[in-house]
Amino acid sequence: MSEISRRRLLGGGALAAGGVALGWGAATVTDSPASAASPATVPFHGDRQAGIATPPPAHTTFVGLDLRPGVDRDALIRLMRVWTDDAARLTAGRRALADTEPELAAVPARLTVTIGFGPGVFAAAGREHLRPTWLSPLPPFDVDRLESRWSDGDLLLQVGSDDPVAVAHALRVLLKGARGAATVRWSQQGFRRARGSEPEGTTMRNLMGQVDGTVNPAAGTHDFDSLVWVDDGSWLDGGTSVVIRRIRLHLDEWDELDRPGREIVMGRRLSDGAPLTGESEHDEPDFGAVGPGGITVIAPNSHIALSRSLDRSERFHRRSYNYDEAPGGDAVSDSGLVFVSYQADPVRQFVPVQQRLSDDDLFNTWSTPIGSAVFAIPPGCREGGYPGQRLFE
Amino acid sequence: MSEISRRRLLGGGALAAGGVALGWGAATVTDSPASAASPATVPFHGDRQAGIATPPPAHTTFVGLDLRPGVDRDALIRLMRVWTDDAARLTAGRRALADTEPELAAVPARLTVTIGFGPGVFAAAGREHLRPTWLSPLPPFDVDRLESRWSDGDLLLQVGSDDPVAVAHALRVLLKGARGAATVRWSQQGFRRARGSEPEGTTMRNLMGQVDGTVNPAAGTHDFDSLVWVDDGSWLDGGTSVVIRRIRLHLDEWDELDRPGREIVMGRRLSDGAPLTGESEHDEPDFGAVGPGGITVIAPNSHIALSRSLDRSERFHRRSYNYDEAPGGDAVSDSGLVFVSYQADPVRQFVPVQQRLSDDDLFNTWSTPIGSAVFAIPPGCREGGYPGQRLFE
Repeated sequence: MSEISRRRLLGGGALAAGGVALGWGAATVTDSPASAASPATVPFHGDRQAGIATPPPAHTTFVGLDLRPGVDRDALIRLMRVWTDDAARLTAGRRALADTEPELAAVPARLTVTIGFGPGVFAAAGREHLRPTWLSPLPPFDVDRLESRWSDGDLLLQVGSDDPVAVAHALRVLLKGARGAATVRWSQQGFRRARGSEPEGTTMRNLMGQVDGTVNPAAGTHDFDSLVWVDDGSWLDGGTSVVIRRIRLHLDEWDELDRPGREIVMGRRLSDGAPLTGESEHDEPDFGAVGPGGITVIAPNSHIALSRSLDRSERFHRRSYNYDEAPGGDAVSDSGLVFVSYQADPVRQFVPVQQRLSDDDLFNTWSTPIGSAVFAIPPGCREGGYPGQRLFE
Repeated sequence: MSEISRRRLLGGGALAAGGVALGWGAATVTDSPASAASPATVPFHGDRQAGIATPPPAHTTFVGLDLRPGVDRDALIRLMRVWTDDAARLTAGRRALADTEPELAAVPARLTVTIGFGPGVFAAAGREHLRPTWLSPLPPFDVDRLESRWSDGDLLLQVGSDDPVAVAHALRVLLKGARGAATVRWSQQGFRRARGSEPEGTTMRNLMGQVDGTVNPAAGTHDFDSLVWVDDGSWLDGGTSVVIRRIRLHLDEWDELDRPGREIVMGRRLSDGAPLTGESEHDEPDFGAVGPGGITVIAPNSHIALSRSLDRSERFHRRSYNYDEAPGGDAVSDSGLVFVSYQADPVRQFVPVQQRLSDDDLFNTWSTPIGSAVFAIPPGCREGGYPGQRLFE
């Protein structure tokens, strides 16, 4: 810093807002290595992107972006290279190249950055012929009350960490890197229990208190791999798709329902998530079991019954989050789920289930989808590459 | 649940939204004891309220409420008794009396609930003569750009925990309990590093990367007690006041300032928070030290210099949080500080410091107060009582 600019600062009172532009010299900042106390990192590089099969951290923010007019294939490649470099450094607990707050990078706390492509990427890059057939908004469902402020988008950034400061810092770095190419369309902050609150692997409870996500293919199994990862030799091979649906939970109306009623709606016990025909959470439900009065113990229009398909290809990997925003007007809360599912083909795997739920799910009385977005998640990359490279090159 | 209502549910499709009101029977739910795995609790009962001298948890939400018309002393006492019962249970990891999601109460993760009174409480309770002289909006400062949506309020709920689910659950319980008496005026979600990310006692960094909160009286010392707690024999004896100011940080403009410039503005090194005349964070700054060119090393209009008073009674206990909301328009982020300070008398202790900062602080170029609220924090209570009991009875 020159003596002259220093004197300008010391003149303080005469300084106009925004009048100081001394130039940020990234090269003048020494690298901030990962804190020895907090070595928890998830590698960014790999054949698949992180943040999908990895255990969900306490916080994840999903950001949908709109491409600016005129952004083309070259600009997209530049953006992917910038994001890749930033994400590789930040997830390792190192400062990003142009990191203006390098000290905030020291505690990644299992930070992951996951990148997704909406339909607009293919148009902008002149790659419409490579756009997956399923990559467009989901078909409308009767239950939907979608708001554009929570829906669609050309690009997705998914940033997760056990530490909310790490999420905020990484998002700012990544969104600054995208400033010339894209603007924020929507941003959804999701949370689960803090790391350490519960044993690893505990199924989350949503803000209605329900055990949510019991039936989920286990990462690392053949079942998971075949459901989640695209395996067709295309540019997307090793990638997947994500469906992000913002589901408002009507907590006030749900309060009017007593505990047995709630359990019938879901088909599971509230205390431990066991199916109403079982003893523990992971017991297989017996949809044929009949109770007193000659009616099935698990109602055929319960959430658990309708979300289950006889066709085992109609499954997907859920990794949802709670949201809880400042309430407006007379409301006590504005809460719900950022429902998130990954699957190789959302039209074949997700839509049939969602259609059944939309048609008949008892739970529709107490939940409303207000946002919906679908993105292709390109495969991961090795050092020197970037996610989606085969699409652009 | 009766067979009839069960059949109504099983009829599913014919069910109108909100049409099921089977009555929530709290007595039908067994107590949900604190999980053995998560015993971290902070007692609600005590001579002082929790959440002030206790170490700050990772998440705290501050809610300002407006009293409904017609709420009087009796209604306020009822509300205090409900809040006290709910808070005592929830902070111990037990379900609230009318808890509709009792399972969410099992992991308090150092949950604290702190209650504050704005000016409106004294009018509603017919206790204007007992209102502290300092309890009104702060005088206007030139730097202020206050928005009513972040300012003032008749009541304060401060709910903190290391676990964001515990915060969301407790807030919903408490705000439901207040529904007949008050509405939410504003709600501010603050965060720090997750528990475990850094060693206990590490001074937080804000989203500008600054070490923020170095000079803070240490809880448990005579210095802390004399600065924070009211000690005048009044109904507020053992209580304090809180100033909550929402300070927007202009991160984009801050980015234009290089690292030495940032350090001059603050008077501290970014790397470790040491004063520019010192070697480590807690070194005493030498405001008289002169560097090359004959100017002081720490600028007289730096943040550190102006926030320091020669009058040692002009100090307070800070317990601030970061905020980071979804950005609007072309913005990359909407970030800042929920600045929070506790002091026995805000007009005597806080206002002189804030006046100096407003007049001359270099940092004003990059920060703007957009919200401001002051509340009296009544003393704590023993079992059977409630905070502020001496005011009402």
